[in-house]
Amino acid sequence: MNIADIEAAAARLAGRARRTPLLTSPFLDEIAGRPVLVKAECLQHTGSFKFRGAWSAISALPADTRGVIAFSSGNHAQGIAMAARLRGLPSVIVMPADAPKLKRENTAALGAEVITYDRATEDRDAIGERLSQERGLTLVRPFDEPLVIAGQGTCGLEIAEQAAEAGVKRATVLTCCGGGGLTSGIALALEARAPGMTVRTVEPEAFDDVARSLAAGQIVTNPALTGSICDAIITPAPGKLTFPIMHRLCGPGLTVSDEECLRAMALAFLRLKIVLEPGGAVALAAALFRGGELADGPVICTASGGNVDPGVFRTALERYGEG
Amino acid sequence: MNIADIEAAAARLAGRARRTPLLTSPFLDEIAGRPVLVKAECLQHTGSFKFRGAWSAISALPADTRGVIAFSSGNHAQGIAMAARLRGLPSVIVMPADAPKLKRENTAALGAEVITYDRATEDRDAIGERLSQERGLTLVRPFDEPLVIAGQGTCGLEIAEQAAEAGVKRATVLTCCGGGGLTSGIALALEARAPGMTVRTVEPEAFDDVARSLAAGQIVTNPALTGSICDAIITPAPGKLTFPIMHRLCGPGLTVSDEECLRAMALAFLRLKIVLEPGGAVALAAALFRGGELADGPVICTASGGNVDPGVFRTALERYGEG
Repeated sequence: MNIADIEAAAARLAGRARRTPLLTSPFLDEIAGRPVLVKAECLQHTGSFKFRGAWSAISALPADTRGVIAFSSGNHAQGIAMAARLRGLPSVIVMPADAPKLKRENTAALGAEVITYDRATEDRDAIGERLSQERGLTLVRPFDEPLVIAGQGTCGLEIAEQAAEAGVKRATVLTCCGGGGLTSGIALALEARAPGMTVRTVEPEAFDDVARSLAAGQIVTNPALTGSICDAIITPAPGKLTFPIMHRLCGPGLTVSDEECLRAMALAFLRLKIVLEPGGAVALAAALFRGGELADGPVICTASGGNVDPGVFRTALERYGEG
Repeated sequence: MNIADIEAAAARLAGRARRTPLLTSPFLDEIAGRPVLVKAECLQHTGSFKFRGAWSAISALPADTRGVIAFSSGNHAQGIAMAARLRGLPSVIVMPADAPKLKRENTAALGAEVITYDRATEDRDAIGERLSQERGLTLVRPFDEPLVIAGQGTCGLEIAEQAAEAGVKRATVLTCCGGGGLTSGIALALEARAPGMTVRTVEPEAFDDVARSLAAGQIVTNPALTGSICDAIITPAPGKLTFPIMHRLCGPGLTVSDEECLRAMALAFLRLKIVLEPGGAVALAAALFRGGELADGPVICTASGGNVDPGVFRTALERYGEG
């Protein structure tokens, strides 16, 4: 994979994906003690960056494709559902029964058939395999898929352009990291277009498979997959395609606490007027509260998604609404 | 005033003001029964469109200007404070003591000197006049000022461009309307750049001075100035400069209830991932819930500001967070 794949994805996404703004606030700069620039991917179609990779993959499928299938707890699901609808294809999403209600309902409302399973007792891959064979559906993986990584990389192309417009050439770029699709795509894009930037991953504490994998130089897994509010970025392990890219290009991984996420969500509400979900706020949380672990200079955060249940958002405002 | 004034303001604002996105959601289209496009001015610097007019005016002041003074309950105040700081000028804001806490604190944090007064017992204009004379400050009016109207009109230039990119040439454009600065600026811009669009104002019920003035063909006033959650757009009457422009170019004015605003805020949270204040949500509320009063076809709403106290936002989510 290289920059040409990302440029090709950008051509497919032109006029389909939104060019999301790079936002700033003097109040956030003051908290962080440095310039903070926020790439507001929560404003992307379906409320997360996932639409980029979904459309990148689905727009490249052959003309005789009968339909698509995906596994997802929510954001990839919505991206796939909307992209499939735009392409005029049926979509089936296999989703854990405990996925956030908002994400489940949105996926169905976007036209996908949602099939839920019990994470503890059922085998997701077996369900998917059976449906895929029965109906002739094409699987679109959430991150370990070149066309998806290339699609997410278009976010990196925009960061390079928008940061240059803002006069920022050297910066730490923090990504909200699950399986590494967004991170590896952005890292590839910036390697080519903004080599003065260093990408670093941010994960929830105790779900830091990427940080530990980067430190170990090989893929390691999370001991548990439940127990964080950051549902969007809890994955078992980095991908076989994404990990080598991250290992080659990224600095050490960072982690933040759930409380730091909630506070970052409240500050994004107050200072940027955007809605972030917990998993979409980890990068901003690290920028604001983990500055001691970052190199000097500006920090650019991806704010990767905003599909949060209203009750969780109210909790963030109750606890941290005063700043 | 004409399009040349707005183009000149756009030149002053280039690289200073944000080009805010025009957002859409299939969920909002379904509620409205038509395409809904939302100009997210809550993402402008200081959280409202007011920065446009403030920088338009302050950037045009002569070199020997000693400082600026403004009257505002909040959004104009923040716009002026930030614009004055960018120009290196001191600013004084005369603000009612019951202005929302967030707006008061932000204005001070942006470097302005905030002087509060009691709306019931004190004369705002007398306080301003005294301070202006004592310190040699230049008054920047919130809406009835050509440079401010021209600055707000840059929002209309962007709407014309972005709607054309989205393939929309004929539409109803709904504005959140207080004194009419944003409305008249947008109406002048669209008259020149997108003549297929009709601008219509939206106000809170019982604070519909603009709608009644448009109907009467002359300026009429609001009987009361308190009692709505839409603090940002409660003004005594349309301006002497803004009214003739609105009267010449706008269709009949619309009104919405406070509850409709709260529901629109919750839907903007759920579907667009943006934060709106009540006064910044009236246009979206009319698009979603007052379609029977609108001509057929797409509707473009200004979402004019997002400076809402967290408690009010929590109320919106508690009541309407399920959609």
